[in-house]
Amino acid sequence: MSTFVVIGGDAAGMSAASKAKRDDPDIDVVVFEKGEWVSYGACGLPYYIKGEIQSLQDLVSVTPEEFRRERDIDLRTEHEVVDIDPADRTVRAQSDEETVVQEYDHLLVATGARAITPPIDGLDLPGVYTLGSMSDGKQLREYVARARSEKDLMQPDRGPACQFLEQCTGPVGIVGGGYIGVEMAEALAANGFEVHLFQRGDRVLKAFSDATSEAVLEHLADQDVAVYLEAEVASLDGDGTVQAVVTEDNRVPVEMVLVGTGVRPRTKLAEDAGIQLGETGAIATDEYRETNLPDVYAAGDCAEARHVVTGELAYVPLALTANRHGRAIGQTVAGEPTKGGGIAGTAAVKAFEMEAARTGILDHQEARKAGFDPMTDTIEAKSRAGYYPEGGTVLVTLTVDRPSGRVLGGSLASEYGEGAVHRSHALVGAVTEGISASELANYDLAYAPPFNTTWDPVLTAAKVIDGRRQSSES
Amino acid sequence: MSTFVVIGGDAAGMSAASKAKRDDPDIDVVVFEKGEWVSYGACGLPYYIKGEIQSLQDLVSVTPEEFRRERDIDLRTEHEVVDIDPADRTVRAQSDEETVVQEYDHLLVATGARAITPPIDGLDLPGVYTLGSMSDGKQLREYVARARSEKDLMQPDRGPACQFLEQCTGPVGIVGGGYIGVEMAEALAANGFEVHLFQRGDRVLKAFSDATSEAVLEHLADQDVAVYLEAEVASLDGDGTVQAVVTEDNRVPVEMVLVGTGVRPRTKLAEDAGIQLGETGAIATDEYRETNLPDVYAAGDCAEARHVVTGELAYVPLALTANRHGRAIGQTVAGEPTKGGGIAGTAAVKAFEMEAARTGILDHQEARKAGFDPMTDTIEAKSRAGYYPEGGTVLVTLTVDRPSGRVLGGSLASEYGEGAVHRSHALVGAVTEGISASELANYDLAYAPPFNTTWDPVLTAAKVIDGRRQSSES
Repeated sequence: MSTFVVIGGDAAGMSAASKAKRDDPDIDVVVFEKGEWVSYGACGLPYYIKGEIQSLQDLVSVTPEEFRRERDIDLRTEHEVVDIDPADRTVRAQSDEETVVQEYDHLLVATGARAITPPIDGLDLPGVYTLGSMSDGKQLREYVARARSEKDLMQPDRGPACQFLEQCTGPVGIVGGGYIGVEMAEALAANGFEVHLFQRGDRVLKAFSDATSEAVLEHLADQDVAVYLEAEVASLDGDGTVQAVVTEDNRVPVEMVLVGTGVRPRTKLAEDAGIQLGETGAIATDEYRETNLPDVYAAGDCAEARHVVTGELAYVPLALTANRHGRAIGQTVAGEPTKGGGIAGTAAVKAFEMEAARTGILDHQEARKAGFDPMTDTIEAKSRAGYYPEGGTVLVTLTVDRPSGRVLGGSLASEYGEGAVHRSHALVGAVTEGISASELANYDLAYAPPFNTTWDPVLTAAKVIDGRRQSSES
Repeated sequence: MSTFVVIGGDAAGMSAASKAKRDDPDIDVVVFEKGEWVSYGACGLPYYIKGEIQSLQDLVSVTPEEFRRERDIDLRTEHEVVDIDPADRTVRAQSDEETVVQEYDHLLVATGARAITPPIDGLDLPGVYTLGSMSDGKQLREYVARARSEKDLMQPDRGPACQFLEQCTGPVGIVGGGYIGVEMAEALAANGFEVHLFQRGDRVLKAFSDATSEAVLEHLADQDVAVYLEAEVASLDGDGTVQAVVTEDNRVPVEMVLVGTGVRPRTKLAEDAGIQLGETGAIATDEYRETNLPDVYAAGDCAEARHVVTGELAYVPLALTANRHGRAIGQTVAGEPTKGGGIAGTAAVKAFEMEAARTGILDHQEARKAGFDPMTDTIEAKSRAGYYPEGGTVLVTLTVDRPSGRVLGGSLASEYGEGAVHRSHALVGAVTEGISASELANYDLAYAPPFNTTWDPVLTAAKVIDGRRQSSES
């Protein structure tokens, strides 16, 4: 009879807990979660705030009660682990009522990540939000509801972006043009807010290809989102509540600000216990997700993982990796050592009426650091047979290693529903298996007029870049 | 200065002609096409008959004039090649006006396939159609227009399927439940026809998994298509025009019959010239698509190709293979020997408001013949995050080799727009590269709530079958 203790009750933690218990019901599984929510879909928060999902409860795939009763997991919500003692093999957890000292045979640190707060003044003003937790989501939804009910329907003096909207509230500011920034721009615009988005770099969605970023940027403009590029926010100003976003060039009046500038791993608890971090600043593990401490694992948004293209450790905190690695740890703890695989840095995003996905290595500097000689090409192709009554355009960017032709990464964008995201599945296989562009171009992908051209855009992209690569060699 | 002669002006032929000329403009390229159409999208014919595409011209990607003027290809339509003389390196072609004897240095036989006409009486009755060529498509569209204009709007006596349709014509019969049968059922039902579909075997779309077939069958019933399974057609009856489809159990009155029971390669011209066929009955080639005669190539619907899973030669006449192999031959003829890759037997189909795709080897007998020990499992999963406002269900069938876990084949079905077809891209990579289900389950596929659950249905399927496989081993 052994005890498996899990710190953190979201994707990695609950996947590990459930899998361990299912594979070996004799294991005692204890989960400490400092909040009240477990196993929640934080990725769904923008759609909750948008109003397409009615209740926060809908984001929860398995409730605490179900974990306790149906899965026989000793789940203690509102218990924060404050100390790990690896010598004693115990953790100490505190709730409002009690302090618990719990022994473990195996321990999983799944403490997640926190929103990065950039070093700018005014972040603590009322009206400034981040979006990392369920309670953040709740607050933002309440803000939206309040703002909508307080506003008049027509406010023609609220600037150009607003004149096109039937019902216009705000203006609001978003700091950061990554996933959260773009998804929240959609959520807020759908509620009639005039949205101003501030991006420090020279493009939005910088993890994606230049071509994808440009297409999304253009689409944001079509949707009347005011995007400020190379606009480092100097401060948030306000008297009592946030009233303006200040950059070097602009002072944009706003009534609310969402800061979405990425996350960093929560590692303090682990560090204090002597668990080593990697170069990325996240917890270092081996392929079985075991840390430097024996029988102590780490997974999810607090941990590193190995990149399938570079072979290097990387920090890419996303939901699938957390689930997959959590599950692998559960299986390991239950007696079957399991690796859970590497990461390809794959991500998808919906931006209003567009969709985009990316995988692998697109950045040339990163590719060169890993020993490749990268080249990149983008094609634009029809998403369905030209004669088919529906359809749009797919942009496919591929980055390949010039000498070998190996596909290092890809980025796709299309109208929403035209398949950029699902088509990226082909590229994930290619980057994971180290396939060359000429091999990929010969893949026998599915074709029928309602779904693609005879050569799917992915194949066309592979064909084109392979041709360019070969002619640049000779 | 060399001469490349191509017999057949559709996908394989025109791809080869175009590529050869582009890569080496000094080559004389002569194409003989016995019909008037070249480079046409026969896959689009059901949508033309349905009425979603206005003109047959819309299906043509490049016109004869463009091939001649812009691509400098000596294209001779309405010229039928009647003889190949490999000793002299000449072909003889006939048109209404002339007989041409043309020398070649390289020759491509791209004679395509013809519709199989099953051995049943009454096939020659007026009102019986096949769908293999543009002129077939034209005739069917004319039939649909004529029938619609002749019929009264309400015909409550036309059987149960018809009572639900606002405007009901027919009834019509379809013999064969493959791609053509299913696509034409949609095209005809959309025009208000009462459709009766006769399938010899015990399921429709027999190249797909049982689960896919069942889902499509159920959907066809929902769409008021009367499907008769294990219904071998004994004869088509009629006096002057077709009036009934007769099976062992039924005599179903119809006013038109479409026969879509597959195709067989057109090989007579090749055989007469001493070109060898393979075991499949299609033209045998090496990896460069060269036949047993030096400098004589074959590609497209008349030729075999090597299956990436079994390593055996197979006959799977589909558009992408024709394009890809044609292109590879063009490149070879222009001086750069190119293989063009194998086939995975991948196919996609839209059936009313469903979509489906398949790849690799699903049939257990076929798998065993290739030395595998197959097992098959099907999962049903949500197509998007459960809380997301849109979404449906994806069925994923995987067939794996039990000892190794290697993914041999897959079949997917979903509501139209829920991504069964594009998701199959992941499986094409897996079967091509010989990936195991446990490796596939660790793929870092793109995830966001509007596109899938955290584990894409493809991953869930891989995880589930891998678990079953391992537990069946131990």
